[in-house]
Amino acid sequence: MLLDRAAIENMEKRRRAALINSITGFKPAVLVGTADAQGHSNLAIMSSLVHIGSHPPLLALIFRPDSVDRHTLDNIRGSGRYTLNHVHRHIIDAAHQTAARYPRDVSEFAATGLKERWQQGFPAPFVAEAQVRLAMELREEHELEINGTHLIIGEIVHAQFPESAINELGALDPAAAEGIALAGLDSYYAPALVQRMAYAKPEEPPRRIVEAPPSADSKPQRLKN
Amino acid sequence: MLLDRAAIENMEKRRRAALINSITGFKPAVLVGTADAQGHSNLAIMSSLVHIGSHPPLLALIFRPDSVDRHTLDNIRGSGRYTLNHVHRHIIDAAHQTAARYPRDVSEFAATGLKERWQQGFPAPFVAEAQVRLAMELREEHELEINGTHLIIGEIVHAQFPESAINELGALDPAAAEGIALAGLDSYYAPALVQRMAYAKPEEPPRRIVEAPPSADSKPQRLKN
Repeated sequence: MLLDRAAIENMEKRRRAALINSITGFKPAVLVGTADAQGHSNLAIMSSLVHIGSHPPLLALIFRPDSVDRHTLDNIRGSGRYTLNHVHRHIIDAAHQTAARYPRDVSEFAATGLKERWQQGFPAPFVAEAQVRLAMELREEHELEINGTHLIIGEIVHAQFPESAINELGALDPAAAEGIALAGLDSYYAPALVQRMAYAKPEEPPRRIVEAPPSADSKPQRLKN
Repeated sequence: MLLDRAAIENMEKRRRAALINSITGFKPAVLVGTADAQGHSNLAIMSSLVHIGSHPPLLALIFRPDSVDRHTLDNIRGSGRYTLNHVHRHIIDAAHQTAARYPRDVSEFAATGLKERWQQGFPAPFVAEAQVRLAMELREEHELEINGTHLIIGEIVHAQFPESAINELGALDPAAAEGIALAGLDSYYAPALVQRMAYAKPEEPPRRIVEAPPSADSKPQRLKN
């Protein structure tokens, strides 16, 4: 199937939104926890999380100014603090429900049954059920002139995750923390490892360091060097 | 496991990079195709693709100024055009190998065996093997002061994808196009659908519209309303 600029422009609005929201492929799914100055909590599912740098550890989110995320954006600007909590396969229903347009005075925690967890001295709530939880401090904001969206860059000031999900190089295996991937606006996937690759070098061919066996029942195997 | 700001700061550099690059969870994996003014092609794997808006259809990438992606960034600025090509499970080895630091005059197509496909009038190469291919025009660039990275926003001017991967709402199911997800810098996953959710409304409980059966052998089933 082939669509040119005019064909995309002429699509029915909801079908275009469905296509363009899904055309990037698999995305992370995180719950963004915030609170207003009175301590009223807010929780919103987002899929625009992107790595900006490791030192300092910086991540960014994209906010549409006209969306339900506006409560979240207001709270982030107010306190300069927010949390990122990975969605996993046992909380998909509740996580997705946080996208409903609840009034500002309704906490999505109360509405969905997810549990707030507060950490002393940090003014934004974590999701107790999440296995990976990050405390973030707002560092930089850019308004993107082309469509009025906002890029919000924060620094990780506190990270919690299962030690068992960390591999020998120090990386988090999100599958080991039951992590899921989101495609488009409504589709949740459980990823299974296909292969891990050695660091790519021009003078060497690609080399797999871990590989899933052909049988789906077996665990991925570390390969000999 | 719990890391505070000082613990993150004090990590060994490569372990910190491995952790922070993987802490966002699952990411899209795309090959960015470009060419210089002489038509020399370049191809680079990237995982920072993020949705900016649907109308106009805008996507962004994050570029580190000191990385091998610099050839790609130079080419994008030069021609204002680039391609995005989804990595799928049969081209993981070659896609990963494009991350090697080849000299500027070496095309990653030639080095990895991936095939260039050119479209008349468009000055950047597509990856022939990819099932999802997007032609992009540069629209806006932001330098992120906090660490010197660049946010590059482009508009989709041409999209090719398998019609069989489009669902009834018009969204692309990346799993139906054999898409893969990337975690960290080296781990490639094949995602399987867990569930699709109905549009979330405050007055209704979460509702699954498609659900994978308990048996891994069966196909996901559409649920009755």
